[in-house]
Amino acid sequence: MGRPPAAVVFVTGSKITENAKKSLASLKRENPRLEPTLAIIQDGDVGFEWVHTASLTRPPHPELWPWLYHPTGCDGNQFWAGISALTQVSVLFRKAHNDPMTQEMNKSFAREIGLRVIHICLPEGSSKDEIVNEILRLNEDPNVQGLALDLPENLYSSKVLNAVKPEKDVDGVSDVNLGLLVRGDTYDCLVPPTVCAVMELLEDLGGKMVLLVGVGGAVGAALQCVLQQEGAATLTCRWKAPQLQSQLQHADVVVLGSTKPDDVPVSWIKPGTTIISFSRDLLSEKHNYGQQNNHAAENAVGSLAIAMRMQNMVKNTERWIQSQHYRKWDLCCLKLQPLTPVPSDIEISRAQSPKAVDVLAKEIGLLTDEIEIYGQTKAKVRLSLLERLKDQPDGKYVLVAGITPTPLGEGKSTVTIGLVQALTAHLNINSFACLRQPSQGPTFGVKGGAAGGGYAQVIPMEEFNLHLTGDIHAITAANNLLAAAIDARILHENTQSDKALYSRLVPVVNGVRVFSAIQLARLRRLGINKTDPGTLTEEEISKFVRLDIDPSTITWQRVVDTNDRFLRKITVGQANTEKGFVRQAQFDIAVASEIMAILALTTSLQDMKERLGKMVVANDKKGEPVTAEDLGVTGALTVLMKDAIKPTLMQTLEGTPVFVHAGPFANIAHGNSSVLADKIALKLVGEKGFVVTEAGFGADIGMEKFFNIKCRTSGLVPSVVVLVATVRALKMHGGGPNVTAGAPLKKEYTEENLQLVADGCCNLQKQIQITQLFGVPVVVALNVFKTDSPAEVDLVCEIAKQSGAFDAVPCNHWSAGGRGAVKLAQAVEKAANQKNTFKYLYSLELPIVEKIRIIAQKVYGAQDIELSPTAQSQVDQYTRQGFGNLPILMYEPVLELDSSTLWLER
Amino acid sequence: MGRPPAAVVFVTGSKITENAKKSLASLKRENPRLEPTLAIIQDGDVGFEWVHTASLTRPPHPELWPWLYHPTGCDGNQFWAGISALTQVSVLFRKAHNDPMTQEMNKSFAREIGLRVIHICLPEGSSKDEIVNEILRLNEDPNVQGLALDLPENLYSSKVLNAVKPEKDVDGVSDVNLGLLVRGDTYDCLVPPTVCAVMELLEDLGGKMVLLVGVGGAVGAALQCVLQQEGAATLTCRWKAPQLQSQLQHADVVVLGSTKPDDVPVSWIKPGTTIISFSRDLLSEKHNYGQQNNHAAENAVGSLAIAMRMQNMVKNTERWIQSQHYRKWDLCCLKLQPLTPVPSDIEISRAQSPKAVDVLAKEIGLLTDEIEIYGQTKAKVRLSLLERLKDQPDGKYVLVAGITPTPLGEGKSTVTIGLVQALTAHLNINSFACLRQPSQGPTFGVKGGAAGGGYAQVIPMEEFNLHLTGDIHAITAANNLLAAAIDARILHENTQSDKALYSRLVPVVNGVRVFSAIQLARLRRLGINKTDPGTLTEEEISKFVRLDIDPSTITWQRVVDTNDRFLRKITVGQANTEKGFVRQAQFDIAVASEIMAILALTTSLQDMKERLGKMVVANDKKGEPVTAEDLGVTGALTVLMKDAIKPTLMQTLEGTPVFVHAGPFANIAHGNSSVLADKIALKLVGEKGFVVTEAGFGADIGMEKFFNIKCRTSGLVPSVVVLVATVRALKMHGGGPNVTAGAPLKKEYTEENLQLVADGCCNLQKQIQITQLFGVPVVVALNVFKTDSPAEVDLVCEIAKQSGAFDAVPCNHWSAGGRGAVKLAQAVEKAANQKNTFKYLYSLELPIVEKIRIIAQKVYGAQDIELSPTAQSQVDQYTRQGFGNLPILMYEPVLELDSSTLWLER
Repeated sequence: MGRPPAAVVFVTGSKITENAKKSLASLKRENPRLEPTLAIIQDGDVGFEWVHTASLTRPPHPELWPWLYHPTGCDGNQFWAGISALTQVSVLFRKAHNDPMTQEMNKSFAREIGLRVIHICLPEGSSKDEIVNEILRLNEDPNVQGLALDLPENLYSSKVLNAVKPEKDVDGVSDVNLGLLVRGDTYDCLVPPTVCAVMELLEDLGGKMVLLVGVGGAVGAALQCVLQQEGAATLTCRWKAPQLQSQLQHADVVVLGSTKPDDVPVSWIKPGTTIISFSRDLLSEKHNYGQQNNHAAENAVGSLAIAMRMQNMVKNTERWIQSQHYRKWDLCCLKLQPLTPVPSDIEISRAQSPKAVDVLAKEIGLLTDEIEIYGQTKAKVRLSLLERLKDQPDGKYVLVAGITPTPLGEGKSTVTIGLVQALTAHLNINSFACLRQPSQGPTFGVKGGAAGGGYAQVIPMEEFNLHLTGDIHAITAANNLLAAAIDARILHENTQSDKALYSRLVPVVNGVRVFSAIQLARLRRLGINKTDPGTLTEEEISKFVRLDIDPSTITWQRVVDTNDRFLRKITVGQANTEKGFVRQAQFDIAVASEIMAILALTTSLQDMKERLGKMVVANDKKGEPVTAEDLGVTGALTVLMKDAIKPTLMQTLEGTPVFVHAGPFANIAHGNSSVLADKIALKLVGEKGFVVTEAGFGADIGMEKFFNIKCRTSGLVPSVVVLVATVRALKMHGGGPNVTAGAPLKKEYTEENLQLVADGCCNLQKQIQITQLFGVPVVVALNVFKTDSPAEVDLVCEIAKQSGAFDAVPCNHWSAGGRGAVKLAQAVEKAANQKNTFKYLYSLELPIVEKIRIIAQKVYGAQDIELSPTAQSQVDQYTRQGFGNLPILMYEPVLELDSSTLWLER
Repeated sequence: MGRPPAAVVFVTGSKITENAKKSLASLKRENPRLEPTLAIIQDGDVGFEWVHTASLTRPPHPELWPWLYHPTGCDGNQFWAGISALTQVSVLFRKAHNDPMTQEMNKSFAREIGLRVIHICLPEGSSKDEIVNEILRLNEDPNVQGLALDLPENLYSSKVLNAVKPEKDVDGVSDVNLGLLVRGDTYDCLVPPTVCAVMELLEDLGGKMVLLVGVGGAVGAALQCVLQQEGAATLTCRWKAPQLQSQLQHADVVVLGSTKPDDVPVSWIKPGTTIISFSRDLLSEKHNYGQQNNHAAENAVGSLAIAMRMQNMVKNTERWIQSQHYRKWDLCCLKLQPLTPVPSDIEISRAQSPKAVDVLAKEIGLLTDEIEIYGQTKAKVRLSLLERLKDQPDGKYVLVAGITPTPLGEGKSTVTIGLVQALTAHLNINSFACLRQPSQGPTFGVKGGAAGGGYAQVIPMEEFNLHLTGDIHAITAANNLLAAAIDARILHENTQSDKALYSRLVPVVNGVRVFSAIQLARLRRLGINKTDPGTLTEEEISKFVRLDIDPSTITWQRVVDTNDRFLRKITVGQANTEKGFVRQAQFDIAVASEIMAILALTTSLQDMKERLGKMVVANDKKGEPVTAEDLGVTGALTVLMKDAIKPTLMQTLEGTPVFVHAGPFANIAHGNSSVLADKIALKLVGEKGFVVTEAGFGADIGMEKFFNIKCRTSGLVPSVVVLVATVRALKMHGGGPNVTAGAPLKKEYTEENLQLVADGCCNLQKQIQITQLFGVPVVVALNVFKTDSPAEVDLVCEIAKQSGAFDAVPCNHWSAGGRGAVKLAQAVEKAANQKNTFKYLYSLELPIVEKIRIIAQKVYGAQDIELSPTAQSQVDQYTRQGFGNLPILMYEPVLELDSSTLWLER
C-alpha cells in the first residue's frame, strides 16, 4: 500500500490530434478538392459519446467516480489521495451525445484537425430500418469518407452494424472489421476507437496479465485480440464470478466494461494495478454530468476515444484517396482454354461463364451508386462518375481502323477485343474496349454479330445483340414520337383556325392561361417579347401557332429496328380520320436516326437536350428550318433518352471490361461509338491505362470521321491508331478474284502468292498515309489466317513499316484469345509513348465546299471536286440557314432495310 | 501425481449423430421433396480435416502423439500409462482431406444420418477468385443448405470466408457468424464445429479457468466467447510467453491450438488438468498418418467435429425449411405523410424515396439468383421460382373490377394499390398487386399514367410509364419481325422459281444440304415423310417452298408504341426494289399485338413458344391458316421475348411489392395482366397472403374475360371480386349531365343528389349480379370524394349490400394512402374466407355462336343475338379451321393511334 504510484498514464488526445491534423493537411495539399467528411448518425434519444479522462491533475468531481467513490464513503479529495496512491486510473466514459457540449467538442475537434463533421439526427424513435436506409445512403455518398453511429444500445443489431460499409466504418463496429482484426489483418481493418484508446493508455504489455471485467460483445473480442497481439495474456471475468477476487490480485491491468457492483470491495485490487474503465454506466442520468461539471470536463477531460476515431478517419481518407488514384485493377480474369479447330462464335460465347457485372464494376473502381444493373451481365454506368473523377488524368486513347473492307472481313472488332484482352488479362495493364451497339435488324439476317469473334468476343453474345439495355428501343420511341408530332401538327394546322390552335396550345386551366417555358422560348425566337397569353395580337398568335411546315421538305423519317424492306417507301395518312393529308414517307433502320448520332456525340444530359432540340426536321414554307424544339417535344425526347445516355458495361471472354454505347452507321453517320463511353473509360483506366475504340468501314471513312467529327466534339486526343489488315483482303485489293459467300475460296487466297499481297499493300499504304495526315502514330495489326504463309506475313509487316507505320504485328487472338495479341499490345503501348502531333484535317471556319474539297483530295485522293446543281443548292441553303460552320459528314446511301428476314431459321 | 484420473471424457460423435439422424428423418417426413445437402469445396492440394479422438481405451499409436511422446522419450504404452494418470486428454486434429479415408468417413457419416454430401474438388492451384465464384454459385443453389470449405490455410482470406452466405456457413467461418456469436445472438449464429466440439468435451465450466495456448483467429475468438458465456474465465497465451508455466499451473482446462515446442516440459501441467488439442500440426506429413494408422483411426478416432458440422447442417436445414414456408414478411414499409390538399401524382411519386429493389426482393423471400435487377427500382423475377415453390399453397386471389367507366374515372388502379398498401403496410398481411404495363403512347398524350394516383401509386412513376424493363419494346420487335417476314415471303414467292426458293431455304453448305428442325416439322405437317433434301419430288418441293399467302387475308399488322395517327392506314412496298408488290396495311399500337395477349396468358417459356408458333397471320389461297411457325420465325420471336416473359417487380408508395407485367387492352384483347405474375405472386405471399389484380373496363367486359379467359388458362380460382364505384360515376349512370374535360364540374356532381345516386346504382347492381353468375363473393369499394355527402355514401353502400354484395366500404386511400383502405382490406379478408363456388360461364365445347349468345344474354342483358352474314362466315371459317373450341373474346374496335401527340409539352 505504501508503494508510490508508477508513472501516471498521462495521455491526452493532443499528440494524436496533432498527428491527425498534420496528415489531413498534407492530404489536402495533395488533393485540393478533397474535403474529408465524417458523418455521425444520431437519434433523438439520449445516447452516449466516448470521452476520456486520463490527464487528471486534480481530483475530479466525486460524481465522476461513482463506483470507487461510494464504497469508501470518503469525500472526493480524500478518495483521490487514496486512489492515486493505490493505482493508476484512467477512465473512458460516455456522455449524452445529444448534449450540446459533446456536439461542440466533436465540432471543435474536427475544426482543429480540419475535418468536416455532419451530424445526422434521425427523429426520435426511428426504426432500425430507417437507420439502415440512412446508413446505406451515406455508404454511397462519395463525399463522406467515414461513418459513425451514436445510437442507443438497443439499436446496435447485426443488421444495423453490418449495414455500415467496412471501408467507412471508423468505429470498427462491423463484423467484417472484427473478422479482419481477429485474423490479424491490421492493414485493412479499422480498430474500434475505444480499443485504440485503451491500447494508447497501456505500454509495455509484454508478459502482463490483463483482466477484462464485464467487457463483452465485439469490443471485448476486439480488445482481447489486440491485447494478445501485443503480448499480453488476457483473462475475462464477470463481476459475479467466484474467482474475481483472485483474478484481480493477479492482474497487472484491469479493464472495466460495466459498473462495479457494491459488493466488490476496492481492496481486492492490488497496489500498482492500472485500471481502465469504459463503462457507459459510470455516468447515469442522475449524475447529470453535462450540466454540473462543464468546467471540470473542459479542463480535465481529454477525449481520447474521439481522437482515435479521428485517427481512423485519417486512415479512411488516405484509403479513399488511394482508391481514387490510378491503380492497377485487381481484376479476376476469366481463363480461356482455346480449342482447335475454333468452335463457332456462339459456342465459344456460351461455353464461358461471365462474372457478375457488379463484381466487374467493383473491380474497375466503380462505386455501387454509379451503376445500374440490368440482369446479371449488363449494367449502365452513371455520368456522375465524370464529376467524381474529373481531376483524374485520362488514359491513352487508341483507335482501331481498317483497310478498305472486302467481303472477306478484316476483323476490326476482334482486334479491338483481342487487344484489350491482351493488355489487361496478359500484361496486367488497365484497359477498356468501347464498342458500338449493333442494330437488331441484321442480327436476324445474314450478317454475324458485332461482338467480335473466335476467342476475342464480348459476352454473352445474345445479350449484346438483342435489346441490350434498350437504347435502340429508346431511340426508336423518341424518333417516332417526333415523326408523329410532325404529321399531326401539319394536319392540325391545315384543319383548324389560328384561334382554335391557340386554344389547344395554350388552354384555359382553372380559368387561367399560361405559356409553358418551351412556349416562352419559342416566343422569344419569334421576337415576341410577351409573357401573358392574353396580350398577343392576331398576327402574333398566327406566327406563334403556325409552324407552316412544307411537307415536301420533311427530312425526318420514322424508324424501325427491323429489316423490313416493304417500309422503304410508303404512303401514310390514308385513314379517313386524316382527311386526305396523305404523303409519301419511309422507314429507316433505327440506328440511322439522327438521335443515334446525337447519342454518340453528346457529352451530358443537358448537351443532349440542346442537341435534340436543334434537330431540323423540315423547312417551313419560307425556307427556314423547323426544329424539334419548335414542335415542343424536346423534353419528351429527353425523358425517353434519359437512360440511353448511360453507357452499358459488359465484358470480354477473358473478363475485362467493355462499354457498348451508341451505334450510328459509318455510311450515313459518323460510325463511331459514344464520346461519353470513351470519356468514362479514360477516367476508369487511369493515366497508364488504355481505351480502345473502333471506327466503322475503312480508315478513309470511319477514321476520318472519328478524328474530324468525334474527336473535335469530345476534345479527346488519340494516342495511337491500330490499322487492321489481313493477307486475304490485301490479295483482293491486289487484284485477287471475286469472292462469293458460301462458295469455297479460290486458291489465290489459300496458297502463297506474294505478288498479289505486294500489289494489295497499296491500300494499306494509303491508309497509313491518311493516318499520318492527322499526326498520330499507327501500328498495323495483321490478322493471321492458318493459310497465310510466313513469307506473306513478313512481307506485309515489312511494307507497312516502310510506309511509315510505327510497327506491324501479326495477331492470333481469334484462335488464341488475348494471348495471341500480346505482341500487338506491346507495340501499341510503345507507340502510345511516341510524340503525338494530332491535328484536324480542316478548320470549321472554311466554307462547306472547301471542307469537302480537302477531304476528297487529301483522303480520297481526288484531283478536285465539282458539285451537282442539287448539291450546290443544298450547300447554299445550309450556309444560308447558318449551318456552314459544322464539320462535314460524307454520306454513302445504302438500302438499310434489306430482305434477309425471309431466311430466318432455315 | 498419484491422483486418479477424473472421469475420462468419453464423448464420441455417436450421440450427436443419433440426434442429427432423428431430426433429419423427421424433417424429411414433413417435407417429402427435401434432400438436405452439404457441399464441401476442396482444392487439389493436401489439406486437413478435423477429426477427434476422445474415447481412447488403449494407447494410440505413438505417432499420433508427437508432442507428448517426443519429450518423454518412452514408448507408446509407457507414455500412455503416464499420461492417463496425469490428465484427461482429448485430441482434435486434422488429417489430409483429400485422403480417401476421410472422404469415406464424411460419406459414411452422411449416409448414416441421411445427408447428401457433394465434394467439389477445384483444380490444384485454384485462385481465391475461382473459389469465391464457386462459393457464390453454391450460395444461390436452392438445393444446397450447407456449405463448408476444406482448403489450405493460405486460401482462407477475408474475401473467401465472407463469400460464404451466413445462412449456409455450417463451419461458422464468416465474419457475420462470428459477430452474431460475440454479440450473443445464439439463435441466428452458427458456432464453428471445432468450438462446439471443444465445448462438447467440457462440462461444468462455471468458475473454471480455461487456458488457450496458440489458439488464434476467428476460432480463438469464438471459443473464448463461448467459454465465457458458459461461465469460464479464459486466459490466452502464446507458447513462448514467460508466464506460460504459471498459467498452466493455474488452468483447469488447457486448449492447445498449435504444436507444443520441445522446450515446454509436460511436467508444467498440473495433475487433473483437462487437455484438448486441435493443432493441425499434430499430424505433419512426415508422420504419414493416413497410410499407417488406418486401423487405429477407425477404431479409436471419433470425428466429433464432423458430427458437430452435421449438427449445424441440421440447424441450417431447419432454417431453410422455415424460410420456404409461409411467413409474414418482415417488410420495411415506407412511411407516408399525406399532405392536404393532395399534390399532383408526379409530385407525390417524386417525394417518396423507393427502397432498393434488391432489398424488397429479399424481404419478400426471393433468392438473389431469382431476380434480375434493372436499375435501382425495377427487377425481373425468374420463372424458376415457380419450380422452387411449387409445393407451397397459393395465397388468396382478388380481382378488382369496376362499374361501367365514365369520363370521371372510377379509380380501379388506385383501389388495387390502396388495398395492398392497407393489407401489408397497415394490417401486416403479405400482399402483392399485379398490374398491367401501360402503353407508352398515351403517356405522351392526354391520358394520365396507370400507376394509380394520389397516395396509392406505384413508384417511381417515370420508370413505370417509360420503357420499364423493355417488354413492350420486345413485343414491338417480335411483332414487326413477323410482319416483315410475311411481306418478304410473298415477294420472294412471287418473283422466284420453286428451285430458286428451295436453294435459298435449303442451301448447300460445305457441299451438304440439310433440313433444319423447323423445316422437318413443316414437312411432317405437309405429310411429306422425308429427311433428305435431295429426295423431294418437284411437287413436294413446290408444296414445301410455297406458303401461297393470300395478301387480302393478312391479319397481322405492324405495331408501334407511339400514338401516330398517320400510320392508321398506309400503303407499303412502294420502293422500286419491291417490284410493285404494294398493299394497304396499317400500324396498330404495340400493346394491341397478339404477342401481348400471349405474354399475358402464357404459363412458361415452352408454352409461349408454342403459342407464338400457332399465331395465324393470314390464310393461304386455299383458305387454310398460315402461322408464324410456317414462316419459320418461332425461334426468333421466342428469343426476342425471352426476357419479357419475366414479370417486373416494383413497389407501392408504402414499399409493398407490385408486379407489372403485360398490358393487353381490354377492348381488343382480354385486358388483364399476366398469368405468370399472378402465379408467382400467389406463391410469394403464401397461403394467408393476398394477390390483388385488376381487369380493364367495366366488370361486364374486363371481369368476364378475366374469368372466362384468364382464369380458364391459368386454372387459378379467384377468392373475391372488389367492385369499384364512385358517387359521381353513379350519378352519371343515373342520368347526370355530360362531363367535358377541362370544364368545371356541374353542380349535380358536387352537391348532394340522392335521386341521381339511387338511379345510377342500377349499373352497380347489374355488375354485382354478373359477378354472382361466377359464384365469387363481391365487395364494393366506394372511392370517396370530398364533395360526396355522407348520405350519398351510405345510400350506395346500402344498395350494394341489398343487391348481394358481401360488403360495401367507403375508401380514402387516394388522400390517405393504405390507411384509408384498411376497412376495405378487412372486408376483403373476411370475404376471402366465404364459401366460393367459382364456375365459368360457358363450356368451351359449345359452338361459337352459343358461347357468344350466353355472354350477350347473361352478361350484356341481350334478348338474343343475330349474326351478320360477314360474322356468320367468319364463325364458319374459324370453326372449319379448328378454332371452334376456344374461349370467346368480345371485341370493341377503337382507333388506337390518336392525335394527342400534338399537344406535348404545351
